[in-house]
Order: sequence, then structure tokens, then C-alpha cells
Amino acid sequence: MKIIIYGLGIIGASLAAALKRAGHTVLGKNRSRGPVEYALEHHMIDGEAASYEGADVVFLCLPPDATMQELNEDAFPSGCIVSDICGVKEVIEKAVYEKPRNYRYVGTHPMAGKETSGILSASEDLYRGKNLVITVNEYTDPAALDTIRSLAQDAGFGRIMECSAREHDAKIALTSQLAHIVSNAYGKSPLCSFVSGFTGGSFQDMTRVGGVDENLWCDLYFYARDPLLQELSGLIERLKEFEQALKTEDREGMRALLREGRLAHDRFFSEK
Amino acid sequence: MKIIIYGLGIIGASLAAALKRAGHTVLGKNRSRGPVEYALEHHMIDGEAASYEGADVVFLCLPPDATMQELNEDAFPSGCIVSDICGVKEVIEKAVYEKPRNYRYVGTHPMAGKETSGILSASEDLYRGKNLVITVNEYTDPAALDTIRSLAQDAGFGRIMECSAREHDAKIALTSQLAHIVSNAYGKSPLCSFVSGFTGGSFQDMTRVGGVDENLWCDLYFYARDPLLQELSGLIERLKEFEQALKTEDREGMRALLREGRLAHDRFFSEK
Repeated sequence: MKIIIYGLGIIGASLAAALKRAGHTVLGKNRSRGPVEYALEHHMIDGEAASYEGADVVFLCLPPDATMQELNEDAFPSGCIVSDICGVKEVIEKAVYEKPRNYRYVGTHPMAGKETSGILSASEDLYRGKNLVITVNEYTDPAALDTIRSLAQDAGFGRIMECSAREHDAKIALTSQLAHIVSNAYGKSPLCSFVSGFTGGSFQDMTRVGGVDENLWCDLYFYARDPLLQELSGLIERLKEFEQALKTEDREGMRALLREGRLAHDRFFSEK
Repeated sequence: MKIIIYGLGIIGASLAAALKRAGHTVLGKNRSRGPVEYALEHHMIDGEAASYEGADVVFLCLPPDATMQELNEDAFPSGCIVSDICGVKEVIEKAVYEKPRNYRYVGTHPMAGKETSGILSASEDLYRGKNLVITVNEYTDPAALDTIRSLAQDAGFGRIMECSAREHDAKIALTSQLAHIVSNAYGKSPLCSFVSGFTGGSFQDMTRVGGVDENLWCDLYFYARDPLLQELSGLIERLKEFEQALKTEDREGMRALLREGRLAHDRFFSEK
């Protein structure tokens, strides 16, 4: 199967390397030359793609705006399967389905990444055992979906979930976007500059993903504005309950809040 | 050197095992029998301590209230070095120095732990490369401090910091206590029950330590109430800035908030 991957950052280059290792022919495409040369040197791709000609599957591994622009170019061969990897999906589907297309779209969102980006952070093992969400709807072509599922297995993904774009956006607002806001806000305490040597795993975990690219994440936040706002406001309300218990020295209340969170945590972890 | 460790939970039993491996004679003491037997079977201690007789160093690896009670028993041999491992220190020092003691107190706080507790989670490698904070003041005996530093190295700690109890409590309010509140509150979103398969590292990191023992942590929170309240209120204010930017669709404001957090994050990580 001939696969073209446009966008050789951490997500695209890792996907390329994993699919090439699985035996597929993988061509790479990138706006700047550097990542293409790096990918060739490190055997992450079989060659560079000058166009989409002959592609069975194209993965657009680009930020949301660039993804929508490319989906609107209609530059894909007829019948080609086109997938994206964006962390928001309703807006992408809206762009795809605004007119008839000659390609078959299937959205994916790998639950994998690092706190660093770019091809230097890529690895053919990035997706091993990780979760992948595939978004489906009434227009999804069953054969295209099968192909994407099969490629996902080849890339090493563990659980592969299917859901609607709306369900995806609501859940990802909680599991990814809110986490990045909290981490970013956490690290802004003026005291953070003075705690070197005073940190353990809990602080490191809280602040790990805070160094977000403000342009990419600002777009993601506004494309998922409604579900994100709901989750952010909910978290602020819950934190204010802790604040209130501390202020009023309400020990019983504090214990009750913590117990409630512990039970939720235990339910969640037992489900995994 | 004869070391007695009272409290064979994850912290105490790991310390016992690490110090025994380093060649010290380590006796264990615990309110219930189970952990003592487990520690003996797994060669984490050399024997059980019936009293503190003959001890050069005693580590109290107990929750704050039990630690203060034990420090007030004055059951230690004269000149013995007594240390605790509590995550709050001003309140412990206040208990120690309320009257003259025949023992030499040095406070410690290992920046290590797991999201599980108890001796079954203990490991002689728990402290390898981790941070240790030692609290010192005008009453600290220099020879006792040297001994504790040397034992900390034997136990495998990486960086060993010294500071006052007040500085400790302020910094730990940010790096540990606030992190546990946020994690606990984060996991309480009603949507958490439905995101299995939709999670990656950022959500897992956010929720990892949320399952706290409400009695222990409630005590820790109120013993560090003032610095914790300051950090918690600060975080809530910063999260409300994000909420406001989302509500008013202020994209420039959102990018500015994220950029500020990224720069703080980069400063912090470059300092480590």
C-alpha cells in the first residue's frame, strides 16, 4: 500500500517510521526541506512525494487550519483515503463535508505525543500500546475505515476507539485540552522559579505539558470552545470548593471533598 | 550505626530497606504486626524494635499527628538523633521545641512516593536519585545534621536541600499539596467515567495522584493552610483568565496567556 504523509513533525514522522517498519511504502511531504532530509537519512520514509499521485492513503499530519486548507484543495487521487490527526474533529468534518469530495475521509486522533515537538522527537515506537480515536459518521466509507484500522494496528496502537466527532471533541476537551491549560497555568506560580530541588513526581506531572505552542493550542481551544469551557468552568468550581473549605477551616468538608475525589479516581482507575 | 524506623509504610519500609542494603543495622517498629512480619520476610529490616534502647538514629515515618505524639513521648535515648518524614514542618518543629528535649531533632521530607501506599509498595530503590529536603534552624545540631545527610546519601537520594521549616512548607504547598488537590478535583469531572480509551499521558499525569487518603491529606492541608491557600487561590485566578479569554473569544489574550505559561515552563525546565 502506498501511503503519503504530509507533515513530518513528531506525529507524522513517527507514523511514517512505524508504517514503513510494518512493510508499507511510505512517502513524505513537508513544507520545509529539513525534515524530509532527516526522514530520508533516518530511513523513516522511502522517498519524497512530489504530489499525491498514486497514493492509496494520505495522512495529513498538520495543525487544524493547514489541515482544512489541504482538505479543500481537492488535490487527492479519486477514491484515495484521506485522514487527519487533529485534536479537534467537528470543525474538520464540517470542512470535509461542505461539498462532495472525490476522496474518502476518515478522521484519526492518536493519544500520543511528547512535551517536545518536531521530527527530532519522533520515534517508530511512539504509538506502541497507545490509544487511537477514529471518528466516524453516516458518510464514512466502511472499506476506508477498515484500511485505517488495519494501518493503526500496523503502527502499533493498543486500543482503537470509534466515535462521532462531537463525542471526540467533548472527551478530548477533558483529557487533553484542559490538561494543557491546567499545566500551563500551574507553572505560572511566581514560586515556580524557586522550587528546584523541592519537587517530586506530582509537581513534575502537573507541569510537564505546560510549554505549549500558543498558536496551535489557541486554535485547538477555540475549535473546541464549548466543551472546553464547560470542563474548565467545572474544574474552577471544584477548586473553589477546596478553597472555601480551607478558608472556613471546614475539616469535615475538606475530607468529604477529598473522599469524593478518591472514589471517582478509584472508579476511573478500576475501569481502565 | 543502629537505626530504628517506626512506621513501615511505603516511606518507612523503603528507607529501612535502602539503609539496610547500605550496611546499617535497621530495626523496625509498627503498630500492627503485618508490616513487621512482611519486612522481616523480605529482609527489609534486621529485626523488630521493642523499644528505642540503643538507637543512634530514629526515623518516625508516621502521619503528622502520630509523629507529634511520638516526639512528645520523650521515649528516646539521650543524645539520640530523631527525624521525621512529614510533608509539613513548621507544626512539627513547634511540637519539638516547646520544651527542652534529650534528643536531637532533624526534619526530613523525601520527595518520593507512589500513588499507592503501604509496605507492599515499598522498594529499596524508591529514593534513588530523588530530592530530599532537610529542615534546619538555630537549634539544629551540626553533628546530627551531618549524620542525616550521610544516611540520605546511603539511601540513594540525589539532591539534598536544606532550608527552614517555613520555606519548606511554602514550597511544598505548591509542589505537592496543590498538585494533589488539583489531581483530586480534576478526576471528579462527571465525564471522567466515560473517557476510557480517550486518554493519553497528559490526562494520566493530571489524575495520577488524585486518590489521596482523605484523613492524612486533610491534616497536611490544614497544617500548611496559609501557603496552600495562597497557591490555590493564585491557580484559580489564573484559570479564570483562561475561562474569560474563552468566554469573550479573546484569541490574542489566550495566546498571551499561553505564551506567558510557556516561557515560565521553559525557565523552570532549564533550571532543573
